[in-house]
Formats: sequence, C-alpha cells, structure tokens
Amino acid sequence: MDVKKWIEKEAKIFTDSLLAYLPEGKPEKLYRAINHLPSAGGKRIRPLLSFLTCEAVGGTPSDTVPYGVALEIIHTFTLIHDDLMDHDEERRGLPSVHALFGEDTAILAGDALFAKAFEVVSQTPVKDSILTHLIRDLSRMTQEICEGQQLDMDFEYRDDVSVNDFMEMIDKKTAKMFEYAAYGGALIGGASQNVAESLRQYGKNLGLAFQIWDDCLDLVGDDTLGKPLGSDIREGKKTLVYIHALQYLPSKDQKIVARIFGNKSASKNDIQSVISLLKKTGSISYAGSQASKFVSQACDSLEILRESTAKNMLLQIASYAIERKK
Amino acid sequence: MDVKKWIEKEAKIFTDSLLAYLPEGKPEKLYRAINHLPSAGGKRIRPLLSFLTCEAVGGTPSDTVPYGVALEIIHTFTLIHDDLMDHDEERRGLPSVHALFGEDTAILAGDALFAKAFEVVSQTPVKDSILTHLIRDLSRMTQEICEGQQLDMDFEYRDDVSVNDFMEMIDKKTAKMFEYAAYGGALIGGASQNVAESLRQYGKNLGLAFQIWDDCLDLVGDDTLGKPLGSDIREGKKTLVYIHALQYLPSKDQKIVARIFGNKSASKNDIQSVISLLKKTGSISYAGSQASKFVSQACDSLEILRESTAKNMLLQIASYAIERKK
Repeated sequence: MDVKKWIEKEAKIFTDSLLAYLPEGKPEKLYRAINHLPSAGGKRIRPLLSFLTCEAVGGTPSDTVPYGVALEIIHTFTLIHDDLMDHDEERRGLPSVHALFGEDTAILAGDALFAKAFEVVSQTPVKDSILTHLIRDLSRMTQEICEGQQLDMDFEYRDDVSVNDFMEMIDKKTAKMFEYAAYGGALIGGASQNVAESLRQYGKNLGLAFQIWDDCLDLVGDDTLGKPLGSDIREGKKTLVYIHALQYLPSKDQKIVARIFGNKSASKNDIQSVISLLKKTGSISYAGSQASKFVSQACDSLEILRESTAKNMLLQIASYAIERKK
Repeated sequence: MDVKKWIEKEAKIFTDSLLAYLPEGKPEKLYRAINHLPSAGGKRIRPLLSFLTCEAVGGTPSDTVPYGVALEIIHTFTLIHDDLMDHDEERRGLPSVHALFGEDTAILAGDALFAKAFEVVSQTPVKDSILTHLIRDLSRMTQEICEGQQLDMDFEYRDDVSVNDFMEMIDKKTAKMFEYAAYGGALIGGASQNVAESLRQYGKNLGLAFQIWDDCLDLVGDDTLGKPLGSDIREGKKTLVYIHALQYLPSKDQKIVARIFGNKSASKNDIQSVISLLKKTGSISYAGSQASKFVSQACDSLEILRESTAKNMLLQIASYAIERKK
C-alpha cells in the first residue's frame, strides 16, 4: 500500500479520537478556539508513531491512543502559541487561532489544551508506574520544546548561528516530540529498556530528518498548496540551508542573499535568484543529504525489531519523511 | 502566635523549596524569565494549605511539598500569562515578566513553568494511584482556571454581569486552586473521601472569601504598599462591589460611577467620589459580609476534623483571609 495514502487514512482515525477527547464547553469563545486547529486536520504522524512502535514491540496498539492524542494536543498547543509569537496568520489553510479569536484567547486556548493533555494521558491503560514515567516524559519534553522555540527566536538576532546551534534547536523544537512518540509507544507496548531506547533513537532521527526536509521543501517543494516557495527566505529563517550557504557562498553572492533575506516584500524574482544561489553552492543538496543521513540512522535503529507489518510501516514512514513533496 | 507572622515565616520555607525545584538552564533569557516571579516572594498560601490539611488528617505534611510547589508553579504560570493578557506592567513590586523579557518569552516562560509543574508533582511520595488522581486534578483545575480567565475577559465587554456570573468566574479563576490545595493535601495525608471532600469545601470557600476581600481591599485597604486605592475602578473591573452598586445606586449616582469606571486617567478625587458612593449604597459592606459568610462556611467544613494545631491554623487562616489589610 502507498505509504502516503495509508498515513492519510490513519490520520482520519486519530483525528476522530482527538476530537472525541476535546470537550465542548463554556465560555464558548474559548472552546471554539480550542477546537479550531484540531478540526482542521493534520498528518497525525506523532500518534501514528506511538501506535506503530507499540505494535512493533508486540503490544496492543490501541492502548496508545490516549498517549498519542495527548501528544497531538501538546503539538496543537505549541502551534497556537508559536503562531502567535511568530505572527503567522495562517495555519493549515485557515486563519491561525490568534488571527481568528485574538491574542488573549489564543494564549488561553493553548494553556487549556496543554492542561487537557495531562488529563488525557492519565487514561492510558498501563500500570501506574509506567503512567508516571510517561507523564514525567511529556513534562520534560515540553520544557525542551519551549527551550527550542526560545533558541529559534534568539537566532533572529544572531548572525553567528552554527550548524550545531541549529541542530540543537530543531532537536528540541521538533525532534523531541517524535522521539517521545516512538519511545512512549514502545513503553506502553511493554518493550525492554533496550528496545525502547532504540525506538527513541528512531524517533529522534526521524524528527531531525522531517524538519530538515521541511526546510528544503520551502525552497524546492510543490507550492501549489500551502505557503509560496521561499517563505523562509522572506521571513529570515536561519535554516540549515542558509547556514551552509553563508559559509560557502562567495562574498558577492552573500551580499545578494543578505539584501533579500528577511525582506518580507521580496519579489518572486528576488526569491528565485536566492534559490538559484543556494542550489549553485550546493546548500540545498547538503541539507537533503543530511536529512537522508538521519533517515538512514533512523532505519538502522529498527534492526533490533523482528520483522512485522508495523516495523515495515516504520521503515516506510522514514523514507516518506524525505520523499514527500509537501 | 500571630497568624500573619506565622504565614510569613512558613512562606520562606516554601520559597526555598520552590526555588530548589526550579532549574537554571539555557537559553538564559528563558530561564531568567522563569525564575523572575518565584524569586520575588509571595504568600505561598496554596502550598501552606496542602501542608496543613495533610497534617490535620494525620499525614506527614512534608510529603505535600512537591504537590504544593507544583501548585505554586501553576499559580506563577497563570500570573505571567494573566499579566500579559491584562497588560499589567507590575507584579509584587517588580516589572511583570512580559514587561521585562518581552511578550514572546513571557508566553514561553509560562508554558515551561506549567510543564515543570507536572514533573514536580510526579515526585510526590504517594502510591501511584493517588499520584494519577492528583495529576488529573491539576489538569482539570488548570482548564477551569483558563475558563475563569476567559469569563473575566468577556466581562469587560458585557454590561449584564450578574452576581452568579461573578461567583462562577472567581470560583474558577481563584477558588479552584485553593480547593485543590486543601483537597490534594488531604489525599496525600491519607484522608477518607468524606474528610477530603470537607477539606475541599474549606478550600473553595476560603478561596471565594480571599478573592472577594481582595476586591474590597482595593477600595478600603492600606495603600501604602502595592497598587493605589481604586485601581480596579480605573481598570473597569467588574467586582462584586461594582455589580451590587449598579443594582442599588440611584440613577444619577450610577452616571457618576459610569463616567469614572474604566477611565485609566481618573483623578484621585474621582476615585474617592466613587468609593464614597460605593460606601453609601452599602456595596462594600455587602461584599465584606459575603466574604465573611464564605469564611464561616469554610470554618464549618473543618468540624469533621479532631482538634489539632493544624486544624487551629486552618481556622486562623480563614479568619486572616478577611482581616488582612493588604
């Protein structure tokens, strides 16, 4: 079965679970804000990872649903607050929560969702000691996500961001949640610490690949849906591609990039000329090869598992991370 | 011993515990923002309640420290986000977190603190089943606090706020945390469900009294420290006093109040004239008597407990709630 279609089919199931856990309530404005993004769809890749790692270690995959939904709720809460901080007015083709309900309600909706995540995860059908472990992990994970977002914001004012700085930032901001999705699913499935650690490495490397490839797609992707090509250039986002280019571009080309980078009203031609330079200096290929390296490390971590449909899906998701066009 | 002095002495102990749980870390800006308010002191009334209810039911009060610290962390997180939403530039005599570190870092510091609360509470030395109960309670409590803050913000645009609406708002925004402080301490102390429920009622009524009296202090308190008298009038805050006055003031006096209410640049004389009207119509006395009623209900709930020093302190804290001058 085609992995993209399969992910889309599974996403529907997780969306139903997510919506079933999210309450209607009062004040009405708050609850409309809470339900806005969850109703707008999404890949639901995080709950899917928990589901599959649980199955791959011989557990009952449906046991992961509350944990997976909690992850998706935390993901949604961070999107709401990040969109507010980054002044992003759109998300998933809809107005972002703060654009629609105002900044104050967006803050509150994020807070209430985050609170809800801990109520939901507490319904995971596992021994209480494992549950405490999961809760502690979600707490630490979110603290690291906050650190990652602060690093990302700090980058805006720094011109000395190194590849290591960048990797630390995406590790915290993006990869942590993939890491804990894979790890938590394995714990719920009763994996040994050894196997759970391997799956954690799978999740982490998959998350890194996902984010690096996302940044590449902004330059070479299919722009018929979603954001126009080169949005990250207009927003002055310091991606791996940009950091590499700064190091290897001749200084006259650097000046061209510097003029256009972060200029919100840059023309399509401006953006195309920057993309050409990023191609010429090999920066996009470099980032792509890094993403491939992490995918291959992710796949290596799965060797500890015996063959199964779930293992096969985890391998396919890893390939999908760098094959997708959007 | 004088209850006020005793509370101040105990507060120092809880401040030390709180600061011990809060990490130093990187990015530096985020962690300075996280530690800003906790270092500025506070009454620490919530951890104190858990400590005392645990002791009063025969438990080991120090067992409540992680739970009490988690409550104080959640309280701090809500203060940071509320100050941002309410545009309050000061807190505890210091610049508020967003005033000092910017709005984006204030959002993140609140989020990271909230996440931390669940890591801290998971260290409570109780059976895992009780721990799961406590975590679920903290989650639900915070969702209700968010509802309370949204209601409070909605009130700004409503001119039909009833006493019932107001009571629902302060129940959620303020009293819930007192309720769960008292209840959680009892659970940790091994109380029966019956006794724990009584202590929960104690906390709820104490919280209601605390908030109503806080609003009275804004009009008749000691303004030598903290906010100037009548700040709530300048900010157009719909307190119980205001709601009562609207109902009972003659229409010509209502017009005077309406002119000054919510006017941020109202003069001291303007404010004094409104306070005089609120006194004349008995609205301040009415609110004071409501606060007393809730204190007396709080004390009634303690009858289920046998005599002890802890019970005596809980009774004294209830009286202190409406005797304090700031």
